[in-house]
Amino acid sequence: MDKAELKKLIDVAAGREKADVVIKNAKVVNVFSGKIIEGSIAIVGEQFAGVGDYEGVEEIDAKGKYAIPGLIDSHIHIESSHLSPEEFGRLVVPLGTTTIIADPHEIVNVAGISGLNYMMNAAKNTALSVKFMLPSCVPATPFEHAGAIIDSQTMKGPIQFTNVLGLGEFMNFVGVINADDEVLNKLLVAKRFGKIIDGHAPAIKGKDLNAYSAVGIRGDHECSTVDELNDRLENGEYVILREGSACHDLPKLASAVNNTNSRRCLLCSDDRQPKTIFEAGHVNGHLKMCVELGIDAVTAIQMATINAAECWKLEGRGAIAPGYRADLVLMDDLTEFNASQTWIEGKLVAKDGEYLPEIKHIDAAMLTGSVNISGFSKDKLKMHLKSNRVKTIQILTGGIVTGNKIVEVKLDDEGEFIYDPAVDCVKIAIVERHHNTGNVACGFLSDYGIHTGALALTIAHDSHNVVAVGVNDDEIEAAVQAVKEQGGGIVLVRDGEVLERMPLPIGGLMTTQPGEEVAAQLEKMHKIATEELGVREGLDPFITLSFMSLPVIPELKITDVGLFDVTKFDFTSVEAD
Amino acid sequence: MDKAELKKLIDVAAGREKADVVIKNAKVVNVFSGKIIEGSIAIVGEQFAGVGDYEGVEEIDAKGKYAIPGLIDSHIHIESSHLSPEEFGRLVVPLGTTTIIADPHEIVNVAGISGLNYMMNAAKNTALSVKFMLPSCVPATPFEHAGAIIDSQTMKGPIQFTNVLGLGEFMNFVGVINADDEVLNKLLVAKRFGKIIDGHAPAIKGKDLNAYSAVGIRGDHECSTVDELNDRLENGEYVILREGSACHDLPKLASAVNNTNSRRCLLCSDDRQPKTIFEAGHVNGHLKMCVELGIDAVTAIQMATINAAECWKLEGRGAIAPGYRADLVLMDDLTEFNASQTWIEGKLVAKDGEYLPEIKHIDAAMLTGSVNISGFSKDKLKMHLKSNRVKTIQILTGGIVTGNKIVEVKLDDEGEFIYDPAVDCVKIAIVERHHNTGNVACGFLSDYGIHTGALALTIAHDSHNVVAVGVNDDEIEAAVQAVKEQGGGIVLVRDGEVLERMPLPIGGLMTTQPGEEVAAQLEKMHKIATEELGVREGLDPFITLSFMSLPVIPELKITDVGLFDVTKFDFTSVEAD
Repeated sequence: MDKAELKKLIDVAAGREKADVVIKNAKVVNVFSGKIIEGSIAIVGEQFAGVGDYEGVEEIDAKGKYAIPGLIDSHIHIESSHLSPEEFGRLVVPLGTTTIIADPHEIVNVAGISGLNYMMNAAKNTALSVKFMLPSCVPATPFEHAGAIIDSQTMKGPIQFTNVLGLGEFMNFVGVINADDEVLNKLLVAKRFGKIIDGHAPAIKGKDLNAYSAVGIRGDHECSTVDELNDRLENGEYVILREGSACHDLPKLASAVNNTNSRRCLLCSDDRQPKTIFEAGHVNGHLKMCVELGIDAVTAIQMATINAAECWKLEGRGAIAPGYRADLVLMDDLTEFNASQTWIEGKLVAKDGEYLPEIKHIDAAMLTGSVNISGFSKDKLKMHLKSNRVKTIQILTGGIVTGNKIVEVKLDDEGEFIYDPAVDCVKIAIVERHHNTGNVACGFLSDYGIHTGALALTIAHDSHNVVAVGVNDDEIEAAVQAVKEQGGGIVLVRDGEVLERMPLPIGGLMTTQPGEEVAAQLEKMHKIATEELGVREGLDPFITLSFMSLPVIPELKITDVGLFDVTKFDFTSVEAD
Repeated sequence: MDKAELKKLIDVAAGREKADVVIKNAKVVNVFSGKIIEGSIAIVGEQFAGVGDYEGVEEIDAKGKYAIPGLIDSHIHIESSHLSPEEFGRLVVPLGTTTIIADPHEIVNVAGISGLNYMMNAAKNTALSVKFMLPSCVPATPFEHAGAIIDSQTMKGPIQFTNVLGLGEFMNFVGVINADDEVLNKLLVAKRFGKIIDGHAPAIKGKDLNAYSAVGIRGDHECSTVDELNDRLENGEYVILREGSACHDLPKLASAVNNTNSRRCLLCSDDRQPKTIFEAGHVNGHLKMCVELGIDAVTAIQMATINAAECWKLEGRGAIAPGYRADLVLMDDLTEFNASQTWIEGKLVAKDGEYLPEIKHIDAAMLTGSVNISGFSKDKLKMHLKSNRVKTIQILTGGIVTGNKIVEVKLDDEGEFIYDPAVDCVKIAIVERHHNTGNVACGFLSDYGIHTGALALTIAHDSHNVVAVGVNDDEIEAAVQAVKEQGGGIVLVRDGEVLERMPLPIGGLMTTQPGEEVAAQLEKMHKIATEELGVREGLDPFITLSFMSLPVIPELKITDVGLFDVTKFDFTSVEAD
């Protein structure tokens, strides 16, 4: 802010000069007092000048709608929407989202710091304010091969970027609790530059949690019980109540929010697919859900505005008050939270559901061609099992935690799996796809439902290798080859033929296609996966699969190196005995 | 924090290694959840490792006392205690104060940045954590001569000091509202370096307040009504409820604190004299008063701990939680708030009222010899009045606001004042004492009560020239000469003889004498001023006088340049007609 801008701000606030814009006749939600004040909001440049009786060069009639500060999603991976940052902004800004705390963990696992740079540059093309966290755990564990390794040395440059708030969710909580040397190095990089360290530590408690909190963990979005929430909150962490496409924690946690602790409570999506956005909104959907769950509307708004701004040190954001950043939403009511106008930095950027700025995409060519698999054939899928009693990754509904279910499978003479329609168990393979290493690991997936064909995805948290499941090796091979040929994305295969596909050319994770088309295509493919391949009703076939390779979520998972027992935090044999 | 310290913190928190200290059997107040948790507090180095079942190299039994985070005074001028920073720390640490936000506005008005440097260096000798604000308005107004001028250019160096949080109370609120050029320059210095701007703007509201808040004012301690508090709070400022030796706002404001807004409420003293400290404590006294006024004890504790830490961006302070700075107080109860132990950065620094570290004073020689008056004699006190109807600075009780009372005084043939015992009105003089300018301004003081002799002080907000009052020019001259000869402080004179004195050699404001002696001497002098000189009962003779030269507090004041009408914000004649 230069002197002329500061002077103009004062002159307008003092009433000596007209505001650029005045939004008249609004019910202004004051997040500091909790009161709703009827009045006019004066905007000058990118800031609010004040609420009161002001005149503006432009005057807008809010027609008695509620004016609330722009909404903040406190933790999200844009990549999980499969949309480019520009397109993601186009979808969520009309819903009232004005700021997101984005952890580009997925694309950085694929493309390293180039992935971060792409996201930061792309984000400049959207009205949405995107603040970044530097992914802290790339790869997520030492038990897998991602496209990049971000070590403490690599972090020293990007952690200093102005738009990088700190280290993203520190998923290697075991490494923190054990005080692993390289973990300490990473933590010290953030501390040295005065940056935030965000958390991710499901289920731990007591002294383990104390050890984790003690390093200065700012927030955690992995609480799924009230006890977990209270433990983290009492340890001085912010708690981020999550409601996304994959994880639905908000209903389980809402009862924990009260007058004393709500200031330390935030809201986030983590992952938000376009279909969810179209059906349930974004942060406005969280607000609606909060109110339905019995949280006072203003308290819920605070969680999505001033509380988030405080947590993420976004000075002068999260409130409609003099000198604050002019991010606001006009809402029809405080129950449904339908947004009719969104203003960001003093500009009207969405009206009646329509995003107003021009859509421009930056060139993402540097992130295409990310599927690098050589020497793959169905021979790589052979398992030579010595026992037919196998540990299977068991799909459980309602989250991404899996069971470890012992299943008796049919084997041929060479110990190779033969699909049995009577047993809901198929082969799952992770095929390394970044550096042509030739790594392939196989295991079993139960209770997923598929009884014919195969699926393959280049979305496989967090290393984003190819995850493929199918009833036999021919089908899996066809699916892997198809997803490789299309340069990443999702394919459905039956009898060696592609039934349907969604290319995701940007790192195998994202596309510049409109969200509506992505949602429609995913829905179509979901239907085929369910109706034709047999994936269980109630599961999202793709999200579900994409988490089967994440070796930090209990109980059993698989990486390109092998089957992983998260409880023991080590590899394990496929055979049960 | 280096790697070994971080590792040890984790190892202790995780329970693998013994803590340095464990405080067992405590009722730990959790400022995040509001709950009181019985348990043991583990400390390692300067931080808390956690609350739980820990073992320590040293183990202390808290005997069921309440453990609360160390208390924070959010705005104080140490100088107003007349004590050195080292001695101030000795008095308040045993009461549970562990951090103060000090604005060395008084000494900087006398000695410029040398005064700041002295305070910062002296503060290193106390266990108390002293965070500084860079005085923003030196001199307070253009209508007086202080010992130094701190302009925006001068600020650029010190604003960057690590221990300087930002610009101190921006008292020139008129300059902000009018967007004065040099005010803008100062504000931009703070903004450029990402520093806080603290506020001070009594009584303004509406658009004036919006203009003031809009520049990013962080907090204001000048609210004296609930409306003022609510207005500032809704404008996004923190409000600092003040209870000091001179100003008593807390009782007037307590009813405004509620569940929604308390997070934005803090506590401060502004000025705290040793007598007040001995009688009413420090921040622990604020807590006691809060509870008496109906504020929930934990809410009050939050105001003095985590809320203050958030406002002043003191990361990792203000709570008993893993990784937080190990500042805590053991309190006997949550009603009287008698502190039995104070811990700062993991060290026991006070026990049963006794300050434990060694008391060392830095050499303050560079700040002595601050009374530089040449060419002063009683001739300078002549007024040559043309009318006997004069405006007088009228003492009002309960604050530092004064009236503007027209009084008919007796004059001799040359228009010089003759004291009339029937009229409570005496002469007041401000004698410039920094740069031998020879400036002297005279006016009248009513309802102060003095009927014989004179007083002179080198404490005269904010320029700290000599303020003297007396029944005639001989007495005033004697008092000014005496206070000059002793190098600053306070003198009481009758019949040209010093009745009692308190030397304040450090800048004419402070002494290294023990607080007990200062309090006793002030009490003795108070008694003499009241009983022998006639100062009205119920007034503090010295504090009252020291504010008569502050031209930002209504209604009538006097500087070394002349009588000042604060309402009109300009000089005014002494004669009423």
